[in-house]
Amino acid sequence: MSRDERDIDFEAVTNEAIDFLNKEDMDGFRAIFLELHNYEQSEIYQTLSDQEKNTLYKFLSPEETADFFDHLELEPDEYEDLFDNIDARYAAHIIGAMQYDNAVDILNEISREKMTTFLSLMNKDDASEIRSLMNYEEDTAGGIMTTEIISLNILMTVREAMRHIKEMAPDSEMIYYLFVTDPENHLVGIISLRELIVADDDDYIGDAMTERVVSVRVSDDQEEVAQIVRDYDFLAVPVVDYQDHLVGIVTADDIMDVIHEEAGEDYSRLAGMSDNESTSDSALETAKKRLPWLIGLTFMGMITAWMLSFFEDTLAKVVLLSAFIPVISGMAGNTGTQSLAVAIRGISTGEIKESSKLKLAGRELGSGFLTGVVCGIVIFLIIIVMYQEPTLGIIVSGSLIASMSVATIIGTIVPLMMNKVGIDPAIASGPFITTANDIISLLIYFALANVFMASLL
Amino acid sequence: MSRDERDIDFEAVTNEAIDFLNKEDMDGFRAIFLELHNYEQSEIYQTLSDQEKNTLYKFLSPEETADFFDHLELEPDEYEDLFDNIDARYAAHIIGAMQYDNAVDILNEISREKMTTFLSLMNKDDASEIRSLMNYEEDTAGGIMTTEIISLNILMTVREAMRHIKEMAPDSEMIYYLFVTDPENHLVGIISLRELIVADDDDYIGDAMTERVVSVRVSDDQEEVAQIVRDYDFLAVPVVDYQDHLVGIVTADDIMDVIHEEAGEDYSRLAGMSDNESTSDSALETAKKRLPWLIGLTFMGMITAWMLSFFEDTLAKVVLLSAFIPVISGMAGNTGTQSLAVAIRGISTGEIKESSKLKLAGRELGSGFLTGVVCGIVIFLIIIVMYQEPTLGIIVSGSLIASMSVATIIGTIVPLMMNKVGIDPAIASGPFITTANDIISLLIYFALANVFMASLL
Repeated sequence: MSRDERDIDFEAVTNEAIDFLNKEDMDGFRAIFLELHNYEQSEIYQTLSDQEKNTLYKFLSPEETADFFDHLELEPDEYEDLFDNIDARYAAHIIGAMQYDNAVDILNEISREKMTTFLSLMNKDDASEIRSLMNYEEDTAGGIMTTEIISLNILMTVREAMRHIKEMAPDSEMIYYLFVTDPENHLVGIISLRELIVADDDDYIGDAMTERVVSVRVSDDQEEVAQIVRDYDFLAVPVVDYQDHLVGIVTADDIMDVIHEEAGEDYSRLAGMSDNESTSDSALETAKKRLPWLIGLTFMGMITAWMLSFFEDTLAKVVLLSAFIPVISGMAGNTGTQSLAVAIRGISTGEIKESSKLKLAGRELGSGFLTGVVCGIVIFLIIIVMYQEPTLGIIVSGSLIASMSVATIIGTIVPLMMNKVGIDPAIASGPFITTANDIISLLIYFALANVFMASLL
Repeated sequence: MSRDERDIDFEAVTNEAIDFLNKEDMDGFRAIFLELHNYEQSEIYQTLSDQEKNTLYKFLSPEETADFFDHLELEPDEYEDLFDNIDARYAAHIIGAMQYDNAVDILNEISREKMTTFLSLMNKDDASEIRSLMNYEEDTAGGIMTTEIISLNILMTVREAMRHIKEMAPDSEMIYYLFVTDPENHLVGIISLRELIVADDDDYIGDAMTERVVSVRVSDDQEEVAQIVRDYDFLAVPVVDYQDHLVGIVTADDIMDVIHEEAGEDYSRLAGMSDNESTSDSALETAKKRLPWLIGLTFMGMITAWMLSFFEDTLAKVVLLSAFIPVISGMAGNTGTQSLAVAIRGISTGEIKESSKLKLAGRELGSGFLTGVVCGIVIFLIIIVMYQEPTLGIIVSGSLIASMSVATIIGTIVPLMMNKVGIDPAIASGPFITTANDIISLLIYFALANVFMASLL
């Protein structure tokens, strides 16, 4: 099925499934619903009314519901209501049957009381697995890993391993990489299912496996984990604790979400937005989320205005000076944002190392100066042609060169310094850097204008 | 190994490998180099001098070299030189032995002559596979798919299928999803290796497989493909031609790169940068890449200046007006960029559908108006306190409300319209929208100022 065909087909299937729910036809519903991919089931679920959802819970086992709850993509404020209409015992059963990493995500988003209720009502083994996962920070390897894994004993034969895999396959998220442990559960090797299939049945796992295994620590940042998985083209990477015990794996599908999410964070912050904006928000919700930034920027803008009012005399004498305020502050803002974008991306992908920071700052300054000179010459020529005012031309193009150079340095140094002292550099968002550069560039402009004042009059 | 341990260990291994190359010790080199992951081999390769690379080519077979060439991450301008020091026949052999999708990427980046030379020198089968892949656009499913796949015949038994997989495994990129075809090579089903392992040996593939298989077309955009793989948590998705023949698959590792790349594109364009900037560029190279944007913006800035010069009389009478130019244009720029970011992201992730465009524009306008009112009140109060000028307060806050509302509309509508007529909306990059909003917001400001002129004097 192509995408369009699938869309059409999927709409028909969705309507059919909803019809069966409304007609209370359990067999009809199960016959078509359970044929679908879990992701598609989650899509249908999200279009249902409360009443239809209640019917669905009657028709499906908690395990069947858990399978597509694993695929739900909810906004942070939607979790709280998710279980409002579900019997608490049934809800606890669903959560316990979900993939543990997803269960943890849900429990972290709901109220403490609900969380403890659900944990107390669910199967003990599930609850204790989930509790132990909840100890990890959300954005670390521990926070995104799954513990439902198959590990092989180093002393097994290939035949024994294959039998073990056949038994365990239904309960584990990833069976294509098998991690090999010694009797103390230390991670000692890796073998892919591909290698197992090609290997001789009587070989020992210890001989067939690869000993050089790349792992991550439970506390490693999820972005570092993503980088490793992407670099090595892994389908999964093992997670170990500080004693090198195998505690879980992070799979490629979780990594795709991490890459998507982290890129979105950098992007939102460059635009000066909070992360949790959604296209389904109302105008009021959107305004609420953006206001804190915008009010902060209004105050910073007023600082600029207050500063400029000191130059009232200068401006009164040469009114034309004010016509170039937007172009100077705008160009400083643009170059500053470019440098900022390079720095934020470089920090978050780990491309910028301690040693290369000075080099980067120097590079940006050089580029700011060079582009400043070229744009300065362009603007000088335009001013000569339009106003026949060489002194004005020198002031404007001179401050353009100076402020574009300074802006690149501000755009590079501020995020790097914030990162150094442990503040998330993305907080130095686009608009703040831009407004800071506004102030500096206009100071340069009026300082230069005052110097040349005599020849302007 | 944790990340730090690996880094230390890896540095030692790298130095050892280079030593062996310089000592011309082939056995020593091969013993440690071939133990490494292909990605690590590619890392070492990129640190080698030309002479060391030449020794490496002598020590490794083209196939062994191809394995880590698959992992090379090169800048567009580095491809041309890649094969400069390699014998053309050996180079052709390497390219032919690479994964076909990666081979195509390389051939697309080098000169036409080199490309045809390499294609004529390589094994005929490889050349014809690669040639057929080169017909697809780079950013489509066809451009990123691999054709080295295992497909199963619908009439096989599970036992026959497993035997077939064992034979084919060494030559195929992905063996964990098996796609099932009928005798005319139409895609008719899918079965995972997991399901095969658990299934009974005598079952027929046709009975064990899932018939509902999600596929993409060769011409589908890579971003759509990424969306499907991410939604469904696939490890691979099959690619079909217009007659539903199975022609290849796109694997999760390629999708991770797509997600990374596309997010980077949106990000760069929001900052008004070209895509191909690299942190290793020199100041001059960086300046060259950024100049086209910046010169364009200089001209747009001069339009603003030219426009403002018409208000010279107004400015001469009330000099304080110019103090608020930066805050008004700045706030319009900030809100416009936020709307632009939402629109670009929404378009590129496919979240914004035809039907929801008007809704989004209305939402943004509403949010622009609401935030404008709040920021307007804040600025009105500040002006009353600082300057005791209610009329000035009304002009500034009134134009803030108007220009923030308009800026959100410009930021939303322009990219949506560009997308509609088939222009990449990301070209409407941050700085351009910001400068356009500068002009409009200052026009509003001076229009309002002229209306209230009498009471200001």
